[in-house]
Amino acid sequence: MAQPSTKSIPAPKGTRDLYPDDLLRQRYITEAWRRVSIRHGFDEIAGPTFEMLDLYKKKSGEGIVSELFSFRRTGGDDDYALRPEFTPTLARMYAAKANALPSPCKWFTAGPYFRAEKPQRGRLREFLQWNCDVMGGDTDNADFQSVFDAEIICVIVELFSDSGFSPNDVLVRLNSRSILHSLLIHAGVEQSQVDAGVRLLDKWSKIDDVTRARECNAIGLDLNALNRAFQIADSMGSSSSRSGGITLGSLTSTANIDVTQLDRILRLVPKGWAIFDPGIARGLAYYTGTVFELIADGERAVAGGGRYDNLIELFGGPPTPAVGFGMGDVVLGLLLQDKGLMPEGPELMEALSQKPASLRPEAFVIANEAGEAQVEPLLAKLRRGVESEAWNSRADKKPWDADRYCSNSGGVSPMHARRSYKSTKNIGKLLADARKQHAKFAVIIESDEAAKVENLDTREDLGTFPLDGVGAAIAERL
Amino acid sequence: MAQPSTKSIPAPKGTRDLYPDDLLRQRYITEAWRRVSIRHGFDEIAGPTFEMLDLYKKKSGEGIVSELFSFRRTGGDDDYALRPEFTPTLARMYAAKANALPSPCKWFTAGPYFRAEKPQRGRLREFLQWNCDVMGGDTDNADFQSVFDAEIICVIVELFSDSGFSPNDVLVRLNSRSILHSLLIHAGVEQSQVDAGVRLLDKWSKIDDVTRARECNAIGLDLNALNRAFQIADSMGSSSSRSGGITLGSLTSTANIDVTQLDRILRLVPKGWAIFDPGIARGLAYYTGTVFELIADGERAVAGGGRYDNLIELFGGPPTPAVGFGMGDVVLGLLLQDKGLMPEGPELMEALSQKPASLRPEAFVIANEAGEAQVEPLLAKLRRGVESEAWNSRADKKPWDADRYCSNSGGVSPMHARRSYKSTKNIGKLLADARKQHAKFAVIIESDEAAKVENLDTREDLGTFPLDGVGAAIAERL
Repeated sequence: MAQPSTKSIPAPKGTRDLYPDDLLRQRYITEAWRRVSIRHGFDEIAGPTFEMLDLYKKKSGEGIVSELFSFRRTGGDDDYALRPEFTPTLARMYAAKANALPSPCKWFTAGPYFRAEKPQRGRLREFLQWNCDVMGGDTDNADFQSVFDAEIICVIVELFSDSGFSPNDVLVRLNSRSILHSLLIHAGVEQSQVDAGVRLLDKWSKIDDVTRARECNAIGLDLNALNRAFQIADSMGSSSSRSGGITLGSLTSTANIDVTQLDRILRLVPKGWAIFDPGIARGLAYYTGTVFELIADGERAVAGGGRYDNLIELFGGPPTPAVGFGMGDVVLGLLLQDKGLMPEGPELMEALSQKPASLRPEAFVIANEAGEAQVEPLLAKLRRGVESEAWNSRADKKPWDADRYCSNSGGVSPMHARRSYKSTKNIGKLLADARKQHAKFAVIIESDEAAKVENLDTREDLGTFPLDGVGAAIAERL
Repeated sequence: MAQPSTKSIPAPKGTRDLYPDDLLRQRYITEAWRRVSIRHGFDEIAGPTFEMLDLYKKKSGEGIVSELFSFRRTGGDDDYALRPEFTPTLARMYAAKANALPSPCKWFTAGPYFRAEKPQRGRLREFLQWNCDVMGGDTDNADFQSVFDAEIICVIVELFSDSGFSPNDVLVRLNSRSILHSLLIHAGVEQSQVDAGVRLLDKWSKIDDVTRARECNAIGLDLNALNRAFQIADSMGSSSSRSGGITLGSLTSTANIDVTQLDRILRLVPKGWAIFDPGIARGLAYYTGTVFELIADGERAVAGGGRYDNLIELFGGPPTPAVGFGMGDVVLGLLLQDKGLMPEGPELMEALSQKPASLRPEAFVIANEAGEAQVEPLLAKLRRGVESEAWNSRADKKPWDADRYCSNSGGVSPMHARRSYKSTKNIGKLLADARKQHAKFAVIIESDEAAKVENLDTREDLGTFPLDGVGAAIAERL
């Protein structure tokens, strides 16, 4: 066997050696990912670290395919690639078992990903990524799909809120491919050129006039129409207010574009954390509806995602609506450090030794017709928990102490809470759904003000509580 | 961009798609790995998923190098390989920071590994592996190195014992490269041929007479000498008793070989879990001393490891003794299923929602001269915990309930317990060591019977306890 020289061989460029302190800091991030995913009712899955190269040729963006680490096995004839993103694996896994899976299917995963690009601050060749996706669900009901879009955004917002960030640090910038399409049509781009137009719009602000003209010319796009579309989008971007509603409204009055869906999503997301930004297009080719990015300090992208309703069919599954996001550990780690939100030493060790989120749902929320409108608000409350007054009046609050401190001083810890997405109003069927998912307590909302709580293990009826008291009622029995 | 056909693209052969139930079962394994590692005082680290190809040419076995997935980045000129094992990364990481690291350094890691071999039951192309290693420590004190060998074996034994296995299911088969060397010399193999002899001995029972003769001939080894060595080893292997002592003794009387070290190790390992087996050689070229394999049901290898005192120097570090093991998740998963030791459904969910091991050491054991001999036994007891009588008298015991049930019925939960490996007897210095490692309680053994316990956070002296009562005294204050 060949024996290379004994001088030291370094780690590959753009990868990390994580010594014990580094590892704990990374684990602080992955544990937060898991905790928030589980509380929002996502089940964990995992795929292979490498895939057949063809999987990425199907519908990833060109940028990704050119930055793959690809390889063959000695003596074999299959081409493989280290995975650069999770969505193609997800689509393949969903397509393979579509008929046997619950609907909707809410999955999360966290693991290593690879891009053969030039390493720089915040961008490595190997990094961890967290993905959450909702697939399927009642396809006749567009409202449900908006709920899924909103849930996906709520999970990310909760990750930041739970880690001690505020909307001053990081904001969801939200747009919709269908709004972009309407905008391009309104500006005079032809229907057949709209997809190409979206891709160009995505990089419009980063290229000069000469390049703009050349790229339009190359694919036969009308430069003036694209400039008009960009100006409308840009003027709204600059007038962005945190309410979201104003810019959306102006889009309707200026260009007569339907903004109902996006407006619905914005109303379901925690106040102040998301704004409409017509400048967000997302490079990946597979997005079809809602698209969003999380931007920190007005510049750094920390996460992004959107709706990809055609992708699962492309991978051999049935037509399936889907929405999801991905977030890397590198920029998030830098942000936590920069804002002083990463604990150190024994504090970090204690934070990582706390009880994890319960895999069994602690609350399963269902409603009769009268309680319907309260399902989403109550879910959000249970998943976020209630901070105690003692905690709120403390001078030196460390986000990693919040849960433990609150539950010991009259607050309610964040809970793993699920709901039924079935359109039936038959309470018996909805309770069967709760039991199938191994929930501990069922919450049956019967009006705008009150809900019954039932222990599903003992079948004990705990009585009726005002909606604000449901969390505490369950918490003291856990 | 090329658009391949839309027919479905499968996962690469020998990899796994883990759906929610599969993922929970895998997590049951990885959480057990973490829990046991932390209790035994190992710190978690992680390295890149791929390395420079040359790293594996340095000293891995030929078998491993021929089964690598290797690749280049498009346009780059570095050769990379997906990691087939962790030890070369570990040696590189240790060598890079040797001077700044504690001594000894106890590290564990768990992550994905890759081998381009033919997939079969229990052997996949991508799998998870758990590694624990002890590097460095007082190099003048051979006793300490035996303690490290024993600790490494204790971690594995505890993993099995904690998961509900007994020595009837799985057994550590232990040997020593230096004993093999002596045996080969005794049988007439020349000094310069001993390493080649060990490698041949490892596969002797799997090859026929013609192959044996040809292989000996090819490297100029004496076939008769090798047959003699194999017969001695084989006769002992077949007379193996579970006490270990008998076969070791017979080796001394038959071939006049020094077995003191191995005997010491066997005495430090939980009774009944380990035996001496002169047939264990281990294929990897880098082992220098103790070698062992875990064999389930008398045939399936579940884990293996040993001492590799020259490897870190080869990777550019200072001369550093080291010992460690690796265990994959695939065979372990099959074993847990076969023995009915893998929980399902809500039981699995509950098992995975329990409090994890404390990252801060709960007990830090030190001793004056009079208490010295009790350090290892007390450590073992604290790490294993005490089962309550209520638990032991229960008919239907599920291993995953043990910890929670015992701590609620008068038992003592397993603890994260560390010791000082410094040779000083200065109690002040030893307590400083405990504080540096963020321990919660110090246990100062002052005789064969009793120890003082001190709360290191509050500096409160809790008094003196009989050794059997130390665990309970700490547990009720955690």
